[in-house]
Amino acid sequence: MAKPKKQPRPKAETPKGFSDYFGAEVAERNAMLAQIAEVYHRYGFDPLESSAVETVEALGKFLPDVDRPNAGVFAWQEDDDEKWLALRYDLTAPLARVFAQHRNDLPTPYRRYAMGPVWRNEKPGPGRFRQFYQCDADTVGTASMAADAEICAMLADTLERVGIPRGDYLVRVNNRKVLNGILESAFEQQINRALPDGPSEQGANAARQRLTVMQDTTDGILRTLDKHDKVGDDGVRELLGPGRKDQSGAYIDGLNLPHYVIESFIAFLNARAGSNEITLERLREVVSEAPTGQEGVDELEQIVSLLDTQGYGPDRIVIDPSVVRGLGYYTGPVFEAELTFEIPDEKGRPRQFGSVAGGGRYDDLVKRFTGQEVPATGISIGIDRLLAALRAKGRIGGTASGPVLVTVMDRDRIADYQTMVTELRNAGIRAEVFLGNPKNFGNQLKYADKRDCPLAIIEGSDEKARGVVIVKDLALGKRLAAKITSNEEWKEQPAQQEVARIDLVAVVSKYIGETEKNRGPGA
Amino acid sequence: MAKPKKQPRPKAETPKGFSDYFGAEVAERNAMLAQIAEVYHRYGFDPLESSAVETVEALGKFLPDVDRPNAGVFAWQEDDDEKWLALRYDLTAPLARVFAQHRNDLPTPYRRYAMGPVWRNEKPGPGRFRQFYQCDADTVGTASMAADAEICAMLADTLERVGIPRGDYLVRVNNRKVLNGILESAFEQQINRALPDGPSEQGANAARQRLTVMQDTTDGILRTLDKHDKVGDDGVRELLGPGRKDQSGAYIDGLNLPHYVIESFIAFLNARAGSNEITLERLREVVSEAPTGQEGVDELEQIVSLLDTQGYGPDRIVIDPSVVRGLGYYTGPVFEAELTFEIPDEKGRPRQFGSVAGGGRYDDLVKRFTGQEVPATGISIGIDRLLAALRAKGRIGGTASGPVLVTVMDRDRIADYQTMVTELRNAGIRAEVFLGNPKNFGNQLKYADKRDCPLAIIEGSDEKARGVVIVKDLALGKRLAAKITSNEEWKEQPAQQEVARIDLVAVVSKYIGETEKNRGPGA
Repeated sequence: MAKPKKQPRPKAETPKGFSDYFGAEVAERNAMLAQIAEVYHRYGFDPLESSAVETVEALGKFLPDVDRPNAGVFAWQEDDDEKWLALRYDLTAPLARVFAQHRNDLPTPYRRYAMGPVWRNEKPGPGRFRQFYQCDADTVGTASMAADAEICAMLADTLERVGIPRGDYLVRVNNRKVLNGILESAFEQQINRALPDGPSEQGANAARQRLTVMQDTTDGILRTLDKHDKVGDDGVRELLGPGRKDQSGAYIDGLNLPHYVIESFIAFLNARAGSNEITLERLREVVSEAPTGQEGVDELEQIVSLLDTQGYGPDRIVIDPSVVRGLGYYTGPVFEAELTFEIPDEKGRPRQFGSVAGGGRYDDLVKRFTGQEVPATGISIGIDRLLAALRAKGRIGGTASGPVLVTVMDRDRIADYQTMVTELRNAGIRAEVFLGNPKNFGNQLKYADKRDCPLAIIEGSDEKARGVVIVKDLALGKRLAAKITSNEEWKEQPAQQEVARIDLVAVVSKYIGETEKNRGPGA
Repeated sequence: MAKPKKQPRPKAETPKGFSDYFGAEVAERNAMLAQIAEVYHRYGFDPLESSAVETVEALGKFLPDVDRPNAGVFAWQEDDDEKWLALRYDLTAPLARVFAQHRNDLPTPYRRYAMGPVWRNEKPGPGRFRQFYQCDADTVGTASMAADAEICAMLADTLERVGIPRGDYLVRVNNRKVLNGILESAFEQQINRALPDGPSEQGANAARQRLTVMQDTTDGILRTLDKHDKVGDDGVRELLGPGRKDQSGAYIDGLNLPHYVIESFIAFLNARAGSNEITLERLREVVSEAPTGQEGVDELEQIVSLLDTQGYGPDRIVIDPSVVRGLGYYTGPVFEAELTFEIPDEKGRPRQFGSVAGGGRYDDLVKRFTGQEVPATGISIGIDRLLAALRAKGRIGGTASGPVLVTVMDRDRIADYQTMVTELRNAGIRAEVFLGNPKNFGNQLKYADKRDCPLAIIEGSDEKARGVVIVKDLALGKRLAAKITSNEEWKEQPAQQEVARIDLVAVVSKYIGETEKNRGPGA
């Protein structure tokens, strides 16, 4: 038998870009997921849990045009049939696959929600992880704007359910078709300009060529419009037109669009008014006669009208054409939820918290698989950002959450201590016996401190003989400790009380009950 | 610009060995996970959520001794630093990594629970998936048997919490050290036999060689003992001894152990008695003077004594030396929870449901990383098996869980229908408007049927004019439908009632409330 080679010790480290989540972090996330599921469920959405692993073929965005098709995804090849598998990078691609696969058994419309981690094979950065949670709801198989309106209302309800009060968030709605309308409308004008004195093959051809170039630059236009909040109207004018010097002095080539097209985009970006009605009027002007643009504005009007009827006014949901993120991906209405309050950034400067959810309508989701167009609309909530926002506002966390710790004064009497713990647990109280080395009592209190224990129970042989136990209020003790200097004072401190052994559960229940009450709901 | 190649349509299919879970399946699993988390939390365990991805180095069991170290795991190589990453195959390996990495910041003992999917790169089979849930609790950093006793008690409480009544399960406890004791004891006898007339270098060497062979065959012994329930005492005797003809007539080589060693194993396997005390006495006899064996029996005695004090008697937790699975992996006490009721197998024959959880003490968990031995003990519950058991017993599932469906009689009045839904949702009732094509009313009722909707609300122009709506009891309707033959009867059926529009929420609330009550808790 070959002697096994001595292996060097493995490194204990989280893979780069991944993270471990402990205690309260996990509990708070699970509590938030449960609250969101509650709202999604009430709205009639059903849960779906697909596996983390999909075929690369089904994920689609990353078709095998290279030897190793894992750009952006974590992928590997199956041993037997050489198929490529990958971890899902979002919850929408698996939904498309599931709907295409099970469409004959699923109800139509299919309304599903999904929650879980997704994986991105990207360079990690501060606060950017390669595994993170998404929390999606989608309605597949209906073109009705009632589905989009409902998604917006549900998003507002969800944010309030997890603890963002009305006024601290805004759901902003835009429509890709309005943007398409501006492009179309520009095309019409191009043709008209090329035809000042009647039809001319040559002029029309030139105009068509120009349009092709313009459509090819749609991505560039979207990227430029997305910079509006940084560079302002004039910056966008320069970037869509001749070009612009950036802060470093470098010159960025412009898209060289005609002046009147640029001004349409500027008008589009600034169309948001005090009321949704005025915004819609302005958008009608911008899209002019273009049918796609008119359709886009009609859709927004339907959404606003449905939401108004149900009491979701512009204090919660607002038409805002400056929402550009996602316009490249979605085919109709686009939604974005932002938190409007400020929190200090890493340098202590107040900053708007910004976007926590996004979504929209995408009508080509299932087509890849079946050839049929299936209209769909949905939303994805970024749980980690939402948790960060609530933590920054002090709305979750910060309360003692450890178990009641029964300390071990006499290691031969573990059974006695364990009996106390069993009694407490049977009364629904979180409790445990200290199971480490009990020799050094200081270690036990250090442990209680690390675990954030609310109470420690002490029963030495003296207490045992007298039928009492000591209940030590660790939170109060912490606050008092700073002020106490002598051992005598320590013994007298109110953070510690002697109670009859038979009253243990009643006393602890009362204390824990009060603490729970002080914590308030949702803590 | 190169013309993009036309891609064939991708196949919409779940990768081989993976599964999609819909609606109630997901909700039931989540409800069970929440119940288990509640018990684990009450016992003082804190949640830990590590990422699905680990370095292959940290996972350990699958060290890169081949070019592609993915035997059993899904693994891939990082793009930049060529490190191998893999999906976790259980929740224990990540715990070892996390504890080694964060040990200076974590409390000791570290008590954590973890729930989530794990992945196995194995041949899938019926009911065997390559992604499945585990639900673990472990105490790291204590050698105290109180930790093991507590894990057993918690396991019993957990099974009762998820709906397995006392009497329908049994936690069986064994100890690897007892088995080691038998081997040791055999070794002693070997030496004594080799030294009948005093010390002899030669004889002792022969005995030592024999022991090495015996230890090498430990795995074989464990595999054989595990067959006890199939082949019985005599079968085990043959397999440990000269060999055995199996049912097909093929001859299986035996391990050729000496007769008295074989009889020790037979006595070990049959040591379980009506009371834990008698079982322990029998085990003491079997291990004879071997110190490791005595230690093993002492440990079992401590566990039994602690559990007895807290009321966990042999109706729930029992010493059972026939628990062999896991003995190869664990280093001390071993636990297994089995469901004792019978359910029909695929051929309708009654079968014991069997094991749903397993665990034990493993003292070399962290040593790989740090060189230090860190004692640890824990349990892993197989959620999917537990869910299957509860479904087989009809204790979960089977009740209408869809939303109240507001049907669309007049497609111009979506806003009216949506308002009904908003009112219902605001009262906490799950509800939705039918968002598919409303043209064919039959389609709407088919949809309601597929969604398992309890009620449909109908408001045509006639009802609208009279200020009423029709509330249709779909469950009752289904039961009645079989008996109804004419349209007249259909209109008269009690499953349908007209109520004032303003009473809609009250009527539906009452109905849903009663249904909820009928469902009982935990449904």
